[in-house]
Amino acid sequence: PPPPPPRGSTSGTGVCFTRDPNNGNTDLFGEFLINAQGEDVVAGTRTPQPISELAEAMPECYAEFKKNTEILEREYGDMQDIEFTVQENKLFMLQTRNGKRGGEAAVQIAVDLHAEGLITKEEAIQKVLPEHLDQILHPKFADTSSDEYKSALLAKGLPASPGAAVGKVAFSNEKVVANKEAGIPSVLVRDETSPDDVEGMYGSEGILTARGGMTSHAAVVARGWGRPCICGCSALRIDEKAGTLVVELENGETRTFKEGDDISLNGNTGEILGGELAVSPPAITGNLEKFMGWVDDIREIDVLANADTPDDAAEARKNGANGIGLTRTEHMFFLPERIERVRQMILGDEAKSAEALEDLLKYQREDFEGIFKAMDSKKVTIRLLDPPLHEFLPSTEDKEIMTSLASNLGTSLEELKRKIEDAEEVNPMLGLRGCRLGITRPEIIEMQARAVIEACLNAKAAGVDARPDIMIPLVGRVEEFRDQAKLVRDTAEAVFKERGQTCEYKVGTMIEIPRAALMAGEIAKEADFFSFGSNDLTQMTFGYSRDDVGTFLPKYLSKGILLDDPFVTLDQEGVGSLMKMAIERGRAEKPDLTIGVCGEHGGDPRSVKFFDEAGLTYVSCSPFRVPIARLSAAQATIEKKNKK
Amino acid sequence: PPPPPPRGSTSGTGVCFTRDPNNGNTDLFGEFLINAQGEDVVAGTRTPQPISELAEAMPECYAEFKKNTEILEREYGDMQDIEFTVQENKLFMLQTRNGKRGGEAAVQIAVDLHAEGLITKEEAIQKVLPEHLDQILHPKFADTSSDEYKSALLAKGLPASPGAAVGKVAFSNEKVVANKEAGIPSVLVRDETSPDDVEGMYGSEGILTARGGMTSHAAVVARGWGRPCICGCSALRIDEKAGTLVVELENGETRTFKEGDDISLNGNTGEILGGELAVSPPAITGNLEKFMGWVDDIREIDVLANADTPDDAAEARKNGANGIGLTRTEHMFFLPERIERVRQMILGDEAKSAEALEDLLKYQREDFEGIFKAMDSKKVTIRLLDPPLHEFLPSTEDKEIMTSLASNLGTSLEELKRKIEDAEEVNPMLGLRGCRLGITRPEIIEMQARAVIEACLNAKAAGVDARPDIMIPLVGRVEEFRDQAKLVRDTAEAVFKERGQTCEYKVGTMIEIPRAALMAGEIAKEADFFSFGSNDLTQMTFGYSRDDVGTFLPKYLSKGILLDDPFVTLDQEGVGSLMKMAIERGRAEKPDLTIGVCGEHGGDPRSVKFFDEAGLTYVSCSPFRVPIARLSAAQATIEKKNKK
Repeated sequence: PPPPPPRGSTSGTGVCFTRDPNNGNTDLFGEFLINAQGEDVVAGTRTPQPISELAEAMPECYAEFKKNTEILEREYGDMQDIEFTVQENKLFMLQTRNGKRGGEAAVQIAVDLHAEGLITKEEAIQKVLPEHLDQILHPKFADTSSDEYKSALLAKGLPASPGAAVGKVAFSNEKVVANKEAGIPSVLVRDETSPDDVEGMYGSEGILTARGGMTSHAAVVARGWGRPCICGCSALRIDEKAGTLVVELENGETRTFKEGDDISLNGNTGEILGGELAVSPPAITGNLEKFMGWVDDIREIDVLANADTPDDAAEARKNGANGIGLTRTEHMFFLPERIERVRQMILGDEAKSAEALEDLLKYQREDFEGIFKAMDSKKVTIRLLDPPLHEFLPSTEDKEIMTSLASNLGTSLEELKRKIEDAEEVNPMLGLRGCRLGITRPEIIEMQARAVIEACLNAKAAGVDARPDIMIPLVGRVEEFRDQAKLVRDTAEAVFKERGQTCEYKVGTMIEIPRAALMAGEIAKEADFFSFGSNDLTQMTFGYSRDDVGTFLPKYLSKGILLDDPFVTLDQEGVGSLMKMAIERGRAEKPDLTIGVCGEHGGDPRSVKFFDEAGLTYVSCSPFRVPIARLSAAQATIEKKNKK
Repeated sequence: PPPPPPRGSTSGTGVCFTRDPNNGNTDLFGEFLINAQGEDVVAGTRTPQPISELAEAMPECYAEFKKNTEILEREYGDMQDIEFTVQENKLFMLQTRNGKRGGEAAVQIAVDLHAEGLITKEEAIQKVLPEHLDQILHPKFADTSSDEYKSALLAKGLPASPGAAVGKVAFSNEKVVANKEAGIPSVLVRDETSPDDVEGMYGSEGILTARGGMTSHAAVVARGWGRPCICGCSALRIDEKAGTLVVELENGETRTFKEGDDISLNGNTGEILGGELAVSPPAITGNLEKFMGWVDDIREIDVLANADTPDDAAEARKNGANGIGLTRTEHMFFLPERIERVRQMILGDEAKSAEALEDLLKYQREDFEGIFKAMDSKKVTIRLLDPPLHEFLPSTEDKEIMTSLASNLGTSLEELKRKIEDAEEVNPMLGLRGCRLGITRPEIIEMQARAVIEACLNAKAAGVDARPDIMIPLVGRVEEFRDQAKLVRDTAEAVFKERGQTCEYKVGTMIEIPRAALMAGEIAKEADFFSFGSNDLTQMTFGYSRDDVGTFLPKYLSKGILLDDPFVTLDQEGVGSLMKMAIERGRAEKPDLTIGVCGEHGGDPRSVKFFDEAGLTYVSCSPFRVPIARLSAAQATIEKKNKK
């Protein structure tokens, strides 16, 4: 065997980052051990010294090392992660590679390297990963390595939506709302969530569920709204009636929380913590702003946001959205004073239904006006009613609501129950929704079109150049689009006549049914624009129900039958090829056709690159994903140029 | 004004078919009125005389008329429907056209015209419509114009599946089964049917429902099995508990039926009749046999049948199927002694589930062996388990079944209820079914593959050259096919080793998910054959749930948004273009790839013509539709040749 390498006070070994990988500071960041070799530093048997002390211990070696780091950074154009050794006062550089870094550091380093003349702006943009932005853009716990944090740890679930949330345990929508009114932050805790819970989800700081996976209702909605969320934590036992949350700790003990107790969620890691831990807000520094400016200069594809309320719209603008690509009008229907009216509209006789529509018209007009104003004169795309009506109906078990609704409708409880049960569908996702509903109940669409156009005229009167894009959902046949577009245009004409004013508007269609993609040429002849509903298109092209996919998706991923969750990252080969076909057929009819995509994929980096290459006009995603989509779009442009 | 046309005993008018449009007899069939003109015959104010009496009344005119009919038949090559007039003993032929005829007459006339040398076999085939065959091939009421029939009429519903059914009112599966065991015919009467009712539907003579349309569960299943069915009859009030069926008559009176009372259904007209009316069996005459022989000589595409049991298989052969294109193994799971085992397989622990699988293996092996033998050496295509598992689970409300199942599984009622509720899905059509189930629960597929292969070896030992085609359902990714095909092939190898014998078999795939159609090239590399599941492909391509489409389809048809129900007649432009794409991509990889279609469209005449032109190897439809599909296939071939 070779003789052991020399040790002693003139020899040593170390690891070093050329900048601080946590915050990007330009000082060297590392450790060394005198009288040591090889694995000794990482082995942890002796405590190493900070690299700064090498300057005193071995000044010549340090000077040489320091110079080497500069050469290496210049050579590789990036922060380096270096291993080195010193043998009898002689420095050997053992290994160098680009160093891993946190989100803040990534932006700092990219901006600094460009300022130092080492890299171009394009190269700087390529050095920041979407995950880096995601880390920066959510609040986080101030110190996750503290003893306080560690001792507060209760259990782990799936990290379904990032960020730190702190609030009072709340088991119901009502409790969240009551807390909110009293200025108390809540964490909504449920076995799993359903569309009935969106009010509580929206009003809470974070969401915690015992069941469901990364694509469960809770996870999807939470990500969309930027709420931290932990799902599928099997250590939880929720007893809503008793008002308790029991957590089984790893050591077999249990901790019981009552409604109102403090709890903290780390959506980045899935960690659930007892008590109220300190949180830092998103650190949007001047560097980040500068960096995002470069991103916007370079990217070619527009980035819009999905925003359902004036608040969402404000958030979208703050995050740099070029406009709104999707306003889901139905999300506004769940607010407490509205849902009763919605139910009256669905279940009432002609008179009751007309009465409800009149109230809903007022609500919707106000909402739309707020959104137009929040977006100033930027694009606002509004989708007409999409989900199956029965999503709005109460549980027939809920006596209080049922009694009040029956009396409001002037009907018996039995009759009401029968009507609600009649509205139930075997496969609601494939049932009476979208334009099918609009064709069956044209008065609803008329009301919505009127609300949009009146809001637009109101906004114009207030000096906002609003020009809404109205979108017909779930079209599969051109005849469906024709029917609904006529209804919208006739309503607009009627409003223009009444008010003696006009505004510009467009009527386009969602492409979310496979048949619509196949018939895109025909549809393009009549539609002003396309927007891919990539969520539904994925559901129908795969035949996967997003609500039920949890029963087999984990197995599919673990067996390699799927490489990615197709609801997170677009299936380019299948769904993507159908989209390309639709783009080709649509643009063959109308070469300048505006084609966008709304849905979760609009905020997914790999999917954004695909959309850019496929020639889309814009992507639209949740306001919180907008900066990530902007970055991905710029990276797509750079990659395209580099290929040429 | 011109003078009124002359009347009197030397003038008259008449209408006449050159053959009897009811049965095809070659005697003239018509009526005339002496001293009459124009509309007098059809006006019905005077009773006309039979045409035969014209020979006596105006012998010369009659002779001339008779000669004219022969000339016209020769000229047009078809039975004529003629209007004539006689003016002062001079005959004028006013109008002639090809005459409308009933089913029996159509075949008789076609065969006779060929025998008389007036038309070719090809022309004869073109003269019989699919509807004609449909009329012939079902039992029918002996005399629907009798007073007895008219006075028995109670109400009308939708004519969902043709034929005459007579039996005792039965409200439950149990009653149908008990009746069947006692040799008593039943008519199953329900508000609507669900998969739980298939046993009762299968065992009954006919099905009557108060709710649901032409594509409801009852209608689809009944057509598939050739059971007469009337759906959506709103005049019915069914009180299962009280055991009564109350029918509101048109005059406002009601008639009450108890379980066990006689009732008759006319599936051709939707008429519901009280009591037991006389029925004639399908009149399959020698002419029909001869005619179908011509059909088979000419058609190019194979016609297979969907058959789930040895009885179905026998029916399929009787109707001239070239083999079986679809055996839905799950339909055998609903029989009473099996369903408990199926539930044990789904809900039991590993040991209980394995025990159940062993019993199911025996049942399935026996079934498959029966089918192989019934089909002799013809093709038998077997689809592995397809529907969502929870279709097999009991209602948690059914105390008796729940208690027995819980004790069988050694679990508590609460635990059982929870498990059943856990298995519920929001959109079962898009959930855990088909190969997703097979991948999640491979032991079920192993059992099924073993049953097929062992049955095949048993059949071979009995001298039947069985060569099963095993079909993987719901494939969307080639990885799914690969996983399941390997499971089947490994199981087959294991059986071959155990038995020291082998057999030929193929492993193919359903193309029923849009993604599978897009990826058909990749899938063709690994699959031995394709079979389009056009029902599911229509569901996913349109995004329509077949179970829920009744909520908007009537409106769509009445508004002209859809011209046909796409579950009855294939949507050629949308779903059809996806199929063509799949055929092209599949055959680009494997030019000789066998590609068929199974599903309702396989028995629809217009769809069959499309499939023939698209280059499919076969269509497969319910045994009762096989003659219709054979005729449509021959007509497709002839039309293709005529185009060239």
